[in-house]
Amino acid sequence: MLNPADESLGAKLPEGVLRPVSPAYLEEPRGRYLGHAGLVAAPRNTAEVAAVVRACAEARVAIVPRGGGTGLVSGQVMSGGPAPLILSLERMTALRGLWPEENVLLAEAGMSLQAVRDAAEGAGRLFPLSLASQGTAAIGGCLATNAGGVTALRYGTARALCLGIEAVLPDGSIIHDLKRLRKDNTGYDIRDLLIGSEGTLGIITAASLKLVVPSPNIGIAMLQVPGPEAALTLLSLAEGRMAGGVTAFELIGGQGLAFLAELLPEIRQPLPGAEWSVLIEVGLPEGLAPEAALEGLLIEAMERGLVTDGVIAQSGAQAAGFWHLREHIPEANRRVGAVASHDISLPLSEIAGFIRDAGAALAGEGVRINCFGHLGDGNLHYNLFPAPGRMREEYDDRRKALSELVHAMVVERGGSFSAEHGVGRVKVGELARWGDPARLTVMRAIKATLDPLGIMNPGAVLSAAD
Amino acid sequence: MLNPADESLGAKLPEGVLRPVSPAYLEEPRGRYLGHAGLVAAPRNTAEVAAVVRACAEARVAIVPRGGGTGLVSGQVMSGGPAPLILSLERMTALRGLWPEENVLLAEAGMSLQAVRDAAEGAGRLFPLSLASQGTAAIGGCLATNAGGVTALRYGTARALCLGIEAVLPDGSIIHDLKRLRKDNTGYDIRDLLIGSEGTLGIITAASLKLVVPSPNIGIAMLQVPGPEAALTLLSLAEGRMAGGVTAFELIGGQGLAFLAELLPEIRQPLPGAEWSVLIEVGLPEGLAPEAALEGLLIEAMERGLVTDGVIAQSGAQAAGFWHLREHIPEANRRVGAVASHDISLPLSEIAGFIRDAGAALAGEGVRINCFGHLGDGNLHYNLFPAPGRMREEYDDRRKALSELVHAMVVERGGSFSAEHGVGRVKVGELARWGDPARLTVMRAIKATLDPLGIMNPGAVLSAAD
Repeated sequence: MLNPADESLGAKLPEGVLRPVSPAYLEEPRGRYLGHAGLVAAPRNTAEVAAVVRACAEARVAIVPRGGGTGLVSGQVMSGGPAPLILSLERMTALRGLWPEENVLLAEAGMSLQAVRDAAEGAGRLFPLSLASQGTAAIGGCLATNAGGVTALRYGTARALCLGIEAVLPDGSIIHDLKRLRKDNTGYDIRDLLIGSEGTLGIITAASLKLVVPSPNIGIAMLQVPGPEAALTLLSLAEGRMAGGVTAFELIGGQGLAFLAELLPEIRQPLPGAEWSVLIEVGLPEGLAPEAALEGLLIEAMERGLVTDGVIAQSGAQAAGFWHLREHIPEANRRVGAVASHDISLPLSEIAGFIRDAGAALAGEGVRINCFGHLGDGNLHYNLFPAPGRMREEYDDRRKALSELVHAMVVERGGSFSAEHGVGRVKVGELARWGDPARLTVMRAIKATLDPLGIMNPGAVLSAAD
Repeated sequence: MLNPADESLGAKLPEGVLRPVSPAYLEEPRGRYLGHAGLVAAPRNTAEVAAVVRACAEARVAIVPRGGGTGLVSGQVMSGGPAPLILSLERMTALRGLWPEENVLLAEAGMSLQAVRDAAEGAGRLFPLSLASQGTAAIGGCLATNAGGVTALRYGTARALCLGIEAVLPDGSIIHDLKRLRKDNTGYDIRDLLIGSEGTLGIITAASLKLVVPSPNIGIAMLQVPGPEAALTLLSLAEGRMAGGVTAFELIGGQGLAFLAELLPEIRQPLPGAEWSVLIEVGLPEGLAPEAALEGLLIEAMERGLVTDGVIAQSGAQAAGFWHLREHIPEANRRVGAVASHDISLPLSEIAGFIRDAGAALAGEGVRINCFGHLGDGNLHYNLFPAPGRMREEYDDRRKALSELVHAMVVERGGSFSAEHGVGRVKVGELARWGDPARLTVMRAIKATLDPLGIMNPGAVLSAAD
């Protein structure tokens, strides 16, 4: 790979696509990694993206695609080697089409997730993908990383919400596959190959997205549970009673509530001090009051010992308050400052055992554990914090070992060391170590075939040497 | 590709895997194509599948994988060229695991779809994939072809119901990726690449499948509608009112009812003579009577002119009768004998226009049109039959032209010439003609990379010369 040799590559790009290389293009949200760049290009349309990619291929310059820059695994920042060209989708923000009667929306990749959600809402529809960073995250990045979030339980991850894509491949050719079809069995699933490839096989420039008609009756409750195992039994019970209408089922550990109480005391806690609680949201049909449906669930769950206390939101404001609490757990975490964060998933029946065993294994390590997340998906954010009075820097030399311990216990139980954030550059070693060898061989072969020059986001997902 | 040179290849296979080459291995359900085979191997486990594949790779013998043999596009029969080895999954029918509390089932590829459904039901769960041929269709074949069926509207096609796979690649290596995870963002989506590749990139030997908790209240109705456009507006209305609880939404054209009345008069018709009707099934939460919910829908729909008549099933027997009617439309079609069948999908807002324009274009062709199918997925079976008193053979010389006319009109409107049946060997020409060129190039590159010898189901999806 060569440095961009700025003047000569710059002169070969479409007029007006270059942007100054400002620090905002070189950062990632956790501030741990700082990238570098020779050039920043922000094409205005797909043809310009293709032209930039062709020029980079010819000049052997690496490309780092960038959406909203909110990724948490450094897929959007490259620090080693020759400086890349950053290809920002920031100017491709058009809503290309909206068909409410089809439940389809066609967005350019640079459109923010919030803007996609707003456009859908304006047409009486819902785009269900929902993330804390949705105001900034670009839909192209959400697809490139197969983002998850709080509604995956019911609606799936980004992949499940995408009907078709337009993408520029490493040779500058363009895949035109913006279908608005629910069923299309015409050959290999190239769409899903690009989704989740984190910009290493091509650049998604637009996507046709699946909308849904919003549920007429939305209900929400916070329920205190004896432990994770009871929470999972409660989930099965709820899914049965609600006929698949459970939209979110979030586990909240006591440490998270304690951090909130300490750092964001203005946030009202309906179940203060609960060691384990869940936030459940349901979307129900016409003719069924959500408060009544949740009350029915609560009564049966209490009878069965699955819930010990609970509050059902009686107003929109109270419901919003519950979500406000859940969404501020990461903010409180940031203020405390994590020693190590883990975005893991487990087979549902392994979760309780993992929480028990990992807690025991970490007992002597002088860390506080905040375990919370999307329990319905088996997706936990298992984050470690300094013991009271200690600083995160004191753990610097043990951070890696602690993460390895957690990840090894996850993999042993059939889990994943990256549930929803992706591999990026942070977890390349984990994938090489724990990935299935035959699957990795196929991944490397596909990378070499589609990107023989290795210019597409090198070092992400697979090590550049692979 | 070489002929199996029976004795020498046979001797290199694991002991006892060979089966006699009987006609049952050479047929497909519509009886239009007859395959040939040098050998039939039926391995007992994944290691034996791998051994057979390695032996074939060494001997340069083509492999045609075979599940239940119910595919409708001749992916399972190969007629030209040197005779292949047929690799039947018929002995790999084990249920490897079942975790009701996780909503996960682990099946070997040869297990029939019905057996998978029965195992799930035995544990109080539902595996939602549902096809007319489910008694025979193997789950491995359902995945290899990404089968659809009547519940895709709510639960997606086979791809959406698969969490992980085990597969043997063309070099005999084995992908072990039987995860039981809802979220796992660790690299490229090789699972979805194999799903829908119709046995041309490898052989799926087992899969972890997603189950759901059955809905406590199931309701079903048949509603007469003024036309396809009203049916689609009705679908939006129903999805809103039912909060996503619509499980099936099947369009039934008047010709289908006429064929039933003529050939299967014992089947009771709740709306005899209806030019257009829909069968709607809903799965609703505890506390909401489905008859009442459907009545609410019916009243609003009639007020809005979307429905002109309707019958809501008042008993399980009546509900079963409605499904019995819907499921016997293909049987009546078979008895009439189609001139040409089309498994198409369209953007929902293009359906009414397509039905109108295609009807007009075919008006002078002396055919009767039976248009029915999974309207909620935009998936129609648009089948042409001889005019009364004429024989299908009289149309032999025009069959191809008629299909081209239909497919061209579908593609023009952004639709697909293969919604759920796949490409197989029947639609290779259509894919080459209408597929996006850049996507086809990627498909060919991946095929050449993973199967450089071209032994895996050659001639399916992509022409063997590609």
